[in-house]
Amino acid sequence: MSRAVDTGAFSAALQERVEHAECALSALLPLPARQPAVLHESMRYSALGGGKRLRAVLLMESAALVGDVRPPAAFATGEELVHVTPEVMRRVGAAPAAAAAVEMVHAFSLVHDDLPCMDDDDFRRGKPTNHKVFGEGIAVLAGDALLARAFEVLARLPWAGVDPTTAVLVSGELATAVGSGGLIGGQVADLQSEGALAAAPLSRTGELERTLEYIHAHKTGALFVASLRMGGLIGGMNERELDRITAFGRSVGLAFQIVDDILDIEGDAGVMGKRVGTDARRGKLTYPALFGVDASRRRVREELELALAAIEPFGERAAFLSALAQMMAFRRS
Amino acid sequence: MSRAVDTGAFSAALQERVEHAECALSALLPLPARQPAVLHESMRYSALGGGKRLRAVLLMESAALVGDVRPPAAFATGEELVHVTPEVMRRVGAAPAAAAAVEMVHAFSLVHDDLPCMDDDDFRRGKPTNHKVFGEGIAVLAGDALLARAFEVLARLPWAGVDPTTAVLVSGELATAVGSGGLIGGQVADLQSEGALAAAPLSRTGELERTLEYIHAHKTGALFVASLRMGGLIGGMNERELDRITAFGRSVGLAFQIVDDILDIEGDAGVMGKRVGTDARRGKLTYPALFGVDASRRRVREELELALAAIEPFGERAAFLSALAQMMAFRRS
Repeated sequence: MSRAVDTGAFSAALQERVEHAECALSALLPLPARQPAVLHESMRYSALGGGKRLRAVLLMESAALVGDVRPPAAFATGEELVHVTPEVMRRVGAAPAAAAAVEMVHAFSLVHDDLPCMDDDDFRRGKPTNHKVFGEGIAVLAGDALLARAFEVLARLPWAGVDPTTAVLVSGELATAVGSGGLIGGQVADLQSEGALAAAPLSRTGELERTLEYIHAHKTGALFVASLRMGGLIGGMNERELDRITAFGRSVGLAFQIVDDILDIEGDAGVMGKRVGTDARRGKLTYPALFGVDASRRRVREELELALAAIEPFGERAAFLSALAQMMAFRRS
Repeated sequence: MSRAVDTGAFSAALQERVEHAECALSALLPLPARQPAVLHESMRYSALGGGKRLRAVLLMESAALVGDVRPPAAFATGEELVHVTPEVMRRVGAAPAAAAAVEMVHAFSLVHDDLPCMDDDDFRRGKPTNHKVFGEGIAVLAGDALLARAFEVLARLPWAGVDPTTAVLVSGELATAVGSGGLIGGQVADLQSEGALAAAPLSRTGELERTLEYIHAHKTGALFVASLRMGGLIGGMNERELDRITAFGRSVGLAFQIVDDILDIEGDAGVMGKRVGTDARRGKLTYPALFGVDASRRRVREELELALAAIEPFGERAAFLSALAQMMAFRRS
């Protein structure tokens, strides 16, 4: 760790940003007062059911690295809308709206990953998973609708003052990060890796490492990087600045995922809000399973240093992102 | 039926357009040569596995009502790409690329609708459904990836010469048509309507009719209308022209869905490529179940007349769309 962080001030600043993101998310999701009620309930259950909102915060902070910082606005979240309206987009603002879209995609991926035909998880963030509450059919459709809603919000960014050229690029960033060359591709590789570790001889460690890096870069990394680049595009970054924020995102994403894998071994189920030790039981390919916990912790520290170096040129404006990267690398849940 | 149609010439023209759409679709889908192979195979299995390509043809024809007609280009479909490239978008062209995106969304909805937790169908277009071949987990993810790919393609429309302002509107049309206020909302209402008919007393016919209209307008109508509007936007339609094509799409979509329901009662499984009579066995709410086959046929003819009247002002350019509407209303499979 290279910098001192005022933990109390950072926590308050983070909390403010998380609340801002959740407010935007709530305003941009359809309400159960509109039909089909059960679908809207299911979407809100998973999208608003807690979570760290890291992707949203990364996006908004990335925009603030170069663009004007818009203070969190107090807006009502009680709109009875089925579709996104110009009025809501204006009130929410461009970066928080894009942040909400990224959180919708993250929620979509969790709802589908938890399904019985995938990871088959009963709990998420200390609550029953979507399909345990609403049934599998609605859970599949709620995930689908969250994904579609994210692209609806991005298509309406011009209503929040974003020029259409940028809006199209922002939408393209998210689409490529989600698709078969991103998040979903990573989930497929992850599904296929179950049992790979137990079955493989030691001589195949190099191959397993490449598979593991593919999974991490796609399943987690792609959406982290996309969030930062989307924010950068909205803020008005040039190519060099986008490269920096991309490098930051890759390192932070990898560190985050390795910590996730370590916590699955050493974490406390009560603090985590979900079962621990599931990776090992499934013979899943993870960083600590392949290299051990000590080597994994070293890699986390290395990636953190790379991340901090990448955003150094942004100077004082990067103070919050630097502190956030450190928090992500040393978190306990 | 108000117009004479040269069936042979129409069939040849339709076939040419279908092949054009499939060529675009194949060029814009990732190949199994790229990882994750099984996901790309699964996406192509369902997206390229036959089908009428009505939505694609409607989109391309709508663009041709006002815009320049680009002749079908012969392009290789053997690109080894994970992401959409500028070169491929240039070769495919704007309207065929958007048509491919709409077909990806249609394929996504079929793959998810066929899942055991939804309609639980084993066959589609005479072939085993996606989850029967690839398993449920991959089927869910292939559907997800098709949806994401559609928005990736639309975000790259500027590479095919579409101005960004139009590209954003085109993407917004598709997103609203897919989401909880469109296709997915319709599927939820459809799932919830199973058994509704048997359970309801006669006095509730009015309520059932409203539910049925909601299902039809959302599950089928939304994507038909969106296809036509997306094509119209790419072709450069003004608001009045967009209104006309919207009215055409609503009527054609409703007629198409009622015919679908009639064919489920009277159709031949061999011609249809799927089981028939499934709606009745499930107690599903359909037009013929509620009003009888004769009244349903009358409604189809009424909607066809409305559809033809709506595009009358486009004159000779609308000849193919008029013939297509008649084919859709009188089809046998």
